[in-house]
Amino acid sequence: MNNGKIRVGITHGDTNGVGYELILKTFGDPAMCDLCIPIVYGSAKVATFHRRAVGSETNFTVVSSPQAAQSGRLNMISVFDEEIKVDLGQPTEESGRAALLSLQRAVEDYENGDIDVLVTAPVNKKNIRSSEFPFVGHTEYLEKALGEGQEALMMLMNQSLRVALVTMHMPVKEVAASISQEAIERKIDILNDSLKTDFTISIPRIAVLSLNPHVGDDGLLGDEEENFIKPAIEAMREKGVQCFGPYSADGFFGAGQYKHFDAVLAMYHDQGLAPFKALSMDDGVNFTAGLPVVRTSPDHGTAFDIAGKGVANENSFRQAVYAAIDIYRNREREDEASANPLKIVAQERDSKTYAQRTAAGQIE
Amino acid sequence: MNNGKIRVGITHGDTNGVGYELILKTFGDPAMCDLCIPIVYGSAKVATFHRRAVGSETNFTVVSSPQAAQSGRLNMISVFDEEIKVDLGQPTEESGRAALLSLQRAVEDYENGDIDVLVTAPVNKKNIRSSEFPFVGHTEYLEKALGEGQEALMMLMNQSLRVALVTMHMPVKEVAASISQEAIERKIDILNDSLKTDFTISIPRIAVLSLNPHVGDDGLLGDEEENFIKPAIEAMREKGVQCFGPYSADGFFGAGQYKHFDAVLAMYHDQGLAPFKALSMDDGVNFTAGLPVVRTSPDHGTAFDIAGKGVANENSFRQAVYAAIDIYRNREREDEASANPLKIVAQERDSKTYAQRTAAGQIE
Repeated sequence: MNNGKIRVGITHGDTNGVGYELILKTFGDPAMCDLCIPIVYGSAKVATFHRRAVGSETNFTVVSSPQAAQSGRLNMISVFDEEIKVDLGQPTEESGRAALLSLQRAVEDYENGDIDVLVTAPVNKKNIRSSEFPFVGHTEYLEKALGEGQEALMMLMNQSLRVALVTMHMPVKEVAASISQEAIERKIDILNDSLKTDFTISIPRIAVLSLNPHVGDDGLLGDEEENFIKPAIEAMREKGVQCFGPYSADGFFGAGQYKHFDAVLAMYHDQGLAPFKALSMDDGVNFTAGLPVVRTSPDHGTAFDIAGKGVANENSFRQAVYAAIDIYRNREREDEASANPLKIVAQERDSKTYAQRTAAGQIE
Repeated sequence: MNNGKIRVGITHGDTNGVGYELILKTFGDPAMCDLCIPIVYGSAKVATFHRRAVGSETNFTVVSSPQAAQSGRLNMISVFDEEIKVDLGQPTEESGRAALLSLQRAVEDYENGDIDVLVTAPVNKKNIRSSEFPFVGHTEYLEKALGEGQEALMMLMNQSLRVALVTMHMPVKEVAASISQEAIERKIDILNDSLKTDFTISIPRIAVLSLNPHVGDDGLLGDEEENFIKPAIEAMREKGVQCFGPYSADGFFGAGQYKHFDAVLAMYHDQGLAPFKALSMDDGVNFTAGLPVVRTSPDHGTAFDIAGKGVANENSFRQAVYAAIDIYRNREREDEASANPLKIVAQERDSKTYAQRTAAGQIE
């Protein structure tokens, strides 16, 4: 740790997308370089290309290793020597390869303890795929590479809402068959732990959505609610988890019920992410919960259509940096607290009721 | 027609829900009784019960037939003689039966030409089901009862957004198998016609969503985009329909892309309705497009949890009344225009480009 500053490892993502623009804009603000030690895994040449394209004046400091990273600067480690052609807005084999090399080096340095958290710029799911990356996304890759046997939970969050998913990147035709009581219980459990540890919510309240429209309308529109979802909620409540539902997704978001919960567990990708993003104002963050590593990313993709034009909004990326730092600090505090617990504080924390927390303004 | 006023047939929905409260609040405003001739298919006794429960001062005028309906009053036709017990907040056999009797009589009067449009209060899908109503909702019932062989399209709309669905009320496990090129083409066609006729948009722009996350990620996350959705869009474009996509639902709603289209075609219930309702401010209307009858309803359910408490928000119901009247008038104008076309006007209308309409402020 450098003066207590957190070392943020940053991948550049697909080099033909908006990754560098997000990085340049975010760390063009000196306050961001003071807040943490940013270390970009990338290429000075590619960075310079984007810097010119988007008209940025942000400077990189090229360093040979994370140990050499300087406080107050935007540090860069070169992850490849070869020339990489930049084709703005085109997912190419080269840009996919560049994305993978960045991610691999960041993971390696993380394993060696040289960076504290990971913030990843967007990749293209197709051109990054190879025998070395047979995954549909970062979440699945990091679960394997850095999960230490733990299961990842994909969580999207902004200032007022957290949405986690039971199933992630899969075709709609496979979703229903992937829903089981066990899977839901596991995801509720991971979500509950994450809310406690990563967000310091002592008694999290979790809303669980139904799989089918109208909560299956008592079986008319599907039986997964009766067979899997309700039993899972019941079982987790018996274990002391404050989880509720299942709720019909449309009515739940329409009535603003999410405001009464610390997180929402959706059954599949579009059910959770479409309303989440509809409600987000360019401030959504994708957090991979459940793993020892803290990894965040913006909640959008490579944005090839606007690559190199200087019009990308970096707010989601900046929020991803903030979130990674916050979560890392919360975990540190949690570790300190459990290493040397003050009995009375622990008791107070655990005995706080929902009503008390609501009164204290901790719940909207 | 009474002084040119449109006769709005109104069903009371499940008599243990918020239906009467919505009707009483909406037509408690004298301007609403001036705007149209409201005719409620219901029960004076049940109405009186709700009137007391919610503390309303709105009066009904009981009439024996739609012909006897009075201008400037909230008219009611009794649809049953028997006593119906009101159990606020409970879906009972009696309340389901009462909902069905109201709907049946309204449909009968519509068929006889005694009312012009239908606005339906919410029913409970389970207790209304019987051998006489083997459907999962109003849309499916009305397609059969009043469709004259036409196919219904479920559309949700508010001031800034229209969302239509390819598949409606079905379990998630059946969705993918129900998506076909033909089904999508049919729905695009109905949607396009409705936007022209019901909303007087001369050259509608339609966005089509993908079925799978990330538009199937080039086949990694499903093949329906390549096999059905893209060919359907292509085929309809060749027929001159301005349809675009497929778009990934989360990114589409997150980036506010819906603002550039006159309507969005979603593949299934929660994909379209969860973001739609998240973005609606109690003003969503459900419109059954594609049928000869104009039928609208609020975009929410029976709200049993707040039935009889006087706290239900009637705005969605009021908007449903407005929408039914607007759509009916638009259809009348369309009929008049095609009966006696002014050549030059028709040419101008058809030649208006998207750019021209944008410049004219007709598209956001």
